[in-house]
Amino acid sequence: MREVAVIGVGMTKFGELWDSSFRDIGLKAGMLAIEDAGLSGDEIDGMFIGNMASGRFIDQHHIGALIADYSGMASNHVPATRVEAGGASGGMAFRQGVMAVASGMHDMVIVGGAEKMTDVDDPSSNAIIDSTADQQWESSMGATMASLHAMIAKRCIHEGMATREEIAAVSVNSHANAVDNPNAQFRRATKIESVIRSSAVAEPLGMFDCAPISDGAAAVVLCPLEDAKKHTDKPVKVAAVSQASDTLALFQRNSILSFAATRVAAERAYARAGISAKDVSVAEVHDNYTISGILAAQDLGLFKKGEAGKAFLEGVTLTGGKMPINTSGGLKAQGHPIGATGVAQIVELTHQMRGTADKRQIAKPRYGLAQNVGGTGSAVTVSILEAI
Amino acid sequence: MREVAVIGVGMTKFGELWDSSFRDIGLKAGMLAIEDAGLSGDEIDGMFIGNMASGRFIDQHHIGALIADYSGMASNHVPATRVEAGGASGGMAFRQGVMAVASGMHDMVIVGGAEKMTDVDDPSSNAIIDSTADQQWESSMGATMASLHAMIAKRCIHEGMATREEIAAVSVNSHANAVDNPNAQFRRATKIESVIRSSAVAEPLGMFDCAPISDGAAAVVLCPLEDAKKHTDKPVKVAAVSQASDTLALFQRNSILSFAATRVAAERAYARAGISAKDVSVAEVHDNYTISGILAAQDLGLFKKGEAGKAFLEGVTLTGGKMPINTSGGLKAQGHPIGATGVAQIVELTHQMRGTADKRQIAKPRYGLAQNVGGTGSAVTVSILEAI
Repeated sequence: MREVAVIGVGMTKFGELWDSSFRDIGLKAGMLAIEDAGLSGDEIDGMFIGNMASGRFIDQHHIGALIADYSGMASNHVPATRVEAGGASGGMAFRQGVMAVASGMHDMVIVGGAEKMTDVDDPSSNAIIDSTADQQWESSMGATMASLHAMIAKRCIHEGMATREEIAAVSVNSHANAVDNPNAQFRRATKIESVIRSSAVAEPLGMFDCAPISDGAAAVVLCPLEDAKKHTDKPVKVAAVSQASDTLALFQRNSILSFAATRVAAERAYARAGISAKDVSVAEVHDNYTISGILAAQDLGLFKKGEAGKAFLEGVTLTGGKMPINTSGGLKAQGHPIGATGVAQIVELTHQMRGTADKRQIAKPRYGLAQNVGGTGSAVTVSILEAI
Repeated sequence: MREVAVIGVGMTKFGELWDSSFRDIGLKAGMLAIEDAGLSGDEIDGMFIGNMASGRFIDQHHIGALIADYSGMASNHVPATRVEAGGASGGMAFRQGVMAVASGMHDMVIVGGAEKMTDVDDPSSNAIIDSTADQQWESSMGATMASLHAMIAKRCIHEGMATREEIAAVSVNSHANAVDNPNAQFRRATKIESVIRSSAVAEPLGMFDCAPISDGAAAVVLCPLEDAKKHTDKPVKVAAVSQASDTLALFQRNSILSFAATRVAAERAYARAGISAKDVSVAEVHDNYTISGILAAQDLGLFKKGEAGKAFLEGVTLTGGKMPINTSGGLKAQGHPIGATGVAQIVELTHQMRGTADKRQIAKPRYGLAQNVGGTGSAVTVSILEAI
């Protein structure tokens, strides 16, 4: 199995991009990544696209072919494959791209993620998001992604796993970090009390506990590690990509204080990379809801059980802190165009590992970890990048 | 790169399966394939699912996690990845599964394909199918998959590439072969004049030129070739899996008498397998519309340009003929549950290579080829299996 490197990254601004179509943003992110890698499009021989629900958001299936076409790669008949796993679509597409290069079947792969969510009204977009939960036993009964995460939050508070303030601090952390990210949807800080007092979505979670509806795209270019130096002075090694499943419905778990799929995916990734949680310099975690950030930080082993909330509250997780989490602003403040999110995490970590994260740059990065989640922890990918 | 083998196959009956849900059929096909491989589910370490549009057909995204859950594999946290490429979803999922084993990242993979299309009404299902064409420049203007293929058929007739009778013969061939397939949706023969006189769908294509709306699922189990003999006396080698893209919209092609993506994917597959078209013993081709069968047979090199129609008409392509095509009954008569189709092709070819195709068995099989198409030739996979 060949080792793989990231040699180029690019992304659009995340937000409500009224002036851009799905194909515009998909194309732009891809072009930026290819340019960043110093390549021409002709050198790409494989493409993987993470996308959750273009079939419903823009009435278009088959977007692998769409992006291959509009990027000009269809003229070389470059294979393009779309991958979907709810919120984990981007992370899973990245894993497929790594596998394609590792297997030797492809030598130069682009992985993109894109979602255009604002072309439908809010009730429709929420219904689409809820279709990543179990339609038969959850969403058809009225459960929403927000209410399922609210149940997790309530249980965590009840069991003393985190306080309401600590949960709110995940949002404060992401917003504080996003101030320095020019691509972020919300570049303004917020406060604990603003989060707690924000309009109720599903008690105890309010509007500021929930990632927004966003448009956006991100892309990365991969090649064999042994060839990477020909293309860039600062290749970043893919030390591990792992993935794990859990039950689709939340009620079927033994416990909802933790996502087993995150724990298992992390174990597999640490074993593959030959490191442990304490070696992680910076992490991008899936804070689609604030409570998810608490669970992620604990399930990944970055903090002990019951201690992540305090860390968020005390600023340990800020860009300048001891264990920086979501330096990009995370899903909450950078934005959450669903299929793009997992790929945008790799874009941020690549900048961190290269030392090109500008005002968000952390000191002495060695390993960056990305955790991307589909549903309520039903599918999780964990990827580890290494500065070399 | 490790060589890969198919060691187990299974499928449900294809048809209008009113008594079964999506999860029922997905599970059943998987269990049959695992049983056929002589395994228990605990031995599977990776899963790939081909599915086109569960988000619209059954209001459920994230079906990788769903199938992992209901098959019990979520308890081992087995990674499950859904792949979508319109009609080529199944073939693409198969390619991802092969890549996963070839790369060494997985040792025992199940590839499934499933679609439940009859839970929505006919106008809805047709609108969903049309969303694999270019939404912006084709389907939003009123073009349907049927009318786009009708344009191809008209042009082929106009250019002397095939007669109306020859085009109809593709349907007659598939129906004749399906009589011996217990899993086929339509187990009855038809005649040229019945096809030509069938109710008009998009001139010149009638109802009997078009594959039906179907429910169904299919699955195959893959492992490294070197381990295959431990599990079965009759492993089948995956000699090649290839994939190619073309423009999403049909009007952007230089010619519509041929699908360039089929030609390129076939060239790549033949090169990888070290064979040429004349070595193919049996082929499963994507006859979603009769005209597609003519194009496929020519673009794959099984017949010269302008000669495939005659071969279908003269019965050369029947199960007992010199160049058997669609011994399963193809999409037209076995049925076309979209995401399952590409995987069902592999199921049929595996039976042929093993010599277990029962009344459909061809003599002395060596190489079996599957061609699976998304959109109007916008994405094509070509897979070659080898009897060893």
